Amino acid sequence: MNKIYNPTPDTWVSILERPTKTVNDIEQTVKEIFTAVQKEGDVAVAKYTKQFDGVSFENIEVTAAEIDAAVASLPNDLKEAIALAKANVEKFHEAQKTTRVSVETASGVQCWQEKRPIQKVGLYIPGGTAPLFSTVLMLAVPAKIAGCGEIVLCSPPDKNGNINPAILYAANLCGVTKIIKVGGIQAIAGMTFGTQAIPKVYKIFGPGNQYVTVAKQLATQFGVAIDMPAGPSELLVVADDTAVPAFVASDLLSQAEHGTDSQVILVSTSKTMMDAVENEIQIQLEVLPRKAIAEKAIANSKLIFVENDAVALDLINEYGPEHFIVCTANNDFYVDGIQNAGSVFIGNYTPESAGDYASGTNHTLPTNGYAKNYSGVNLDSFMKSMTFQKISSEGIQNIGKAIEIMADAEGLQAHKNAVSLRLAQIEKDNRI
Amino acid sequence: MNKIYNPTPDTWVSILERPTKTVNDIEQTVKEIFTAVQKEGDVAVAKYTKQFDGVSFENIEVTAAEIDAAVASLPNDLKEAIALAKANVEKFHEAQKTTRVSVETASGVQCWQEKRPIQKVGLYIPGGTAPLFSTVLMLAVPAKIAGCGEIVLCSPPDKNGNINPAILYAANLCGVTKIIKVGGIQAIAGMTFGTQAIPKVYKIFGPGNQYVTVAKQLATQFGVAIDMPAGPSELLVVADDTAVPAFVASDLLSQAEHGTDSQVILVSTSKTMMDAVENEIQIQLEVLPRKAIAEKAIANSKLIFVENDAVALDLINEYGPEHFIVCTANNDFYVDGIQNAGSVFIGNYTPESAGDYASGTNHTLPTNGYAKNYSGVNLDSFMKSMTFQKISSEGIQNIGKAIEIMADAEGLQAHKNAVSLRLAQIEKDNRI
Repeated sequence: MNKIYNPTPDTWVSILERPTKTVNDIEQTVKEIFTAVQKEGDVAVAKYTKQFDGVSFENIEVTAAEIDAAVASLPNDLKEAIALAKANVEKFHEAQKTTRVSVETASGVQCWQEKRPIQKVGLYIPGGTAPLFSTVLMLAVPAKIAGCGEIVLCSPPDKNGNINPAILYAANLCGVTKIIKVGGIQAIAGMTFGTQAIPKVYKIFGPGNQYVTVAKQLATQFGVAIDMPAGPSELLVVADDTAVPAFVASDLLSQAEHGTDSQVILVSTSKTMMDAVENEIQIQLEVLPRKAIAEKAIANSKLIFVENDAVALDLINEYGPEHFIVCTANNDFYVDGIQNAGSVFIGNYTPESAGDYASGTNHTLPTNGYAKNYSGVNLDSFMKSMTFQKISSEGIQNIGKAIEIMADAEGLQAHKNAVSLRLAQIEKDNRI
Repeated sequence: MNKIYNPTPDTWVSILERPTKTVNDIEQTVKEIFTAVQKEGDVAVAKYTKQFDGVSFENIEVTAAEIDAAVASLPNDLKEAIALAKANVEKFHEAQKTTRVSVETASGVQCWQEKRPIQKVGLYIPGGTAPLFSTVLMLAVPAKIAGCGEIVLCSPPDKNGNINPAILYAANLCGVTKIIKVGGIQAIAGMTFGTQAIPKVYKIFGPGNQYVTVAKQLATQFGVAIDMPAGPSELLVVADDTAVPAFVASDLLSQAEHGTDSQVILVSTSKTMMDAVENEIQIQLEVLPRKAIAEKAIANSKLIFVENDAVALDLINEYGPEHFIVCTANNDFYVDGIQNAGSVFIGNYTPESAGDYASGTNHTLPTNGYAKNYSGVNLDSFMKSMTFQKISSEGIQNIGKAIEIMADAEGLQAHKNAVSLRLAQIEKDNRI
């Protein structure tokens, strides 16, 4: 662990720098697979599934029988846990519904804004060792509340051509309309172009490895929107002497076990707390099943001592953490002042894992400093805002002159003419 | 003009296809300029300003004296028109403010969502023949309402090293914090990396030619967000016999005068109306100053006859127009049913140019079919949504078990441990 004491502001950018990866090699592979899927559709998808997942099978759409089997196989306590988490995620995202914003900006000029669902969305759920059924909840629940008509889920098959039953269970429970056994670049390409088996979608959500990340970036060049650019997961904790070292250590480790490239930072106004957390990390690390992964992430982690809360807040806003845990005597100061963070966890009994699973907030959050300019996934991520205006003959008389003058000044005579014709007609009607 | 009668749905995609451009040549130029600006800062910016705008000068930041001169030079009627437009845009975007969404998802589990401003934003305003001061209003007004701390505006200088006074006037009026005389790729690169004279920003807004469009795309690879992908402007009008042919023609022409690549479509359930509009277009076209441009766009335009409103609506949703004018006997049917459109203009007295300038809605809208998955610029475009959670010891007891079970099922033991440690501590405290 790297301990840093009182870094001067001119060193913050370099201290807080995230490791960058070159993606040039990957880009070529991704482009090739996109071209193949665009041209050959399901044939190409099957080829890459065999190549990357090592399995071949006929029907890549999950059947009702497969879902039934998954439902039957899942232990009851896990079903109950999922139900509780789903209920909380639902409550929080239901509450994000907005109503039409309507304003008569001038007499006879009625303007309003309405949000309407994105009609077709695609959710990508990675496979691998950790079956991320929690991410199914985080994406499918708001998609359903938003009213998206088509909710497609793609996830890679295992060696036997199956998707983890917990993922199938959650997808079915949350109203996913189609589950496809396809992963990686070929899944993203399939949802971008559409194949016989995979529907084309308008927006793709969800995490993934660097191949999936680059594939999602490429998808945006073909008219598809994505939730946000992705990067390794991050946690920054600010803690003073009111924090509990064992809790802080457990939070930093829960971030560290995600991957060797996870970003883990502790900022503290207490050297005693910094040392105590460091000590606790060593103790807890020993017994973790994913010790090998967490150890590497922890080796790159940073413990930063700063003189006071004001400096700490400035430094944290400069970093813009994905997850931000606040355990200090001045929590309100941080909560009020934080400008750049994905999700904020306040107090000793609010571990990051609460937000990862069950508090109700969304765990799909901006990493890599994107908290400065991107929202985490929320209900609005599944909708788009549209505006409407309805102008009466009185209304156009009220604003028409201004439009004519401005259009004229911008040299757009046809724009002016569209108003002049209408004003002339009204004048003519009035004379009759 | 291309007249199409009763096209079958399987032909819609090809009929409605937008012209695509290859940007490969441009991409190389854009990358070179980005590299130069990243390395050499203002020196490179000055070099490209000389190369592309044909002008050299020392201070690229607009001074207070230049703004004063612009204010003094602008005619009063234009100032009054801008004031009226600004007031309406302010009213409509003020109304879009949202309050904190707060939910106790389980007893002791308080979750809330808050929007906070993006701290540094950049607005790009093109130069050229039409000085788009209206776009200054559309971007700077919501940026100011959102509370963005730094609002930087870049616009290319003319041959004398000046920016059009109407742009300076509007920028100053709307609270832009810094105006920089730099345009094109070098402006976008400057705001992406920051130079001595140009501040680095977190999100870039605004229209531009294809060089600016590609530059904005490239900016996203360096951590900057952009408002939306851009394309040529579009208008689709649906009109039946209740419409006024001269009005419809004037609206189609106001779109057509934007550029030779503008997209203009009329959908109608009346062949009489189609022919009348076609006739009116020819009459009005003759007297337009920008006739040469409008003529080319009109030559590529489409007049599509369909049997009834239901078919029309399906076709329009397939297209997803940027601007959508509805002049029919069944306006409510279209307004309720439209799923994909940037902004909707309802009735005979609501020309598109009203929304372009003064109704209050934003004129920065998704083109090229992006109305299917992107919002037009609105207040939220200048903010990001953050979530917060505060869990009490009671709260973690209510949801802790579910988190433990889910973390365990996902194979993330450290996530589980962060909860288990806290639950154990509470149990210990309770025993005392």
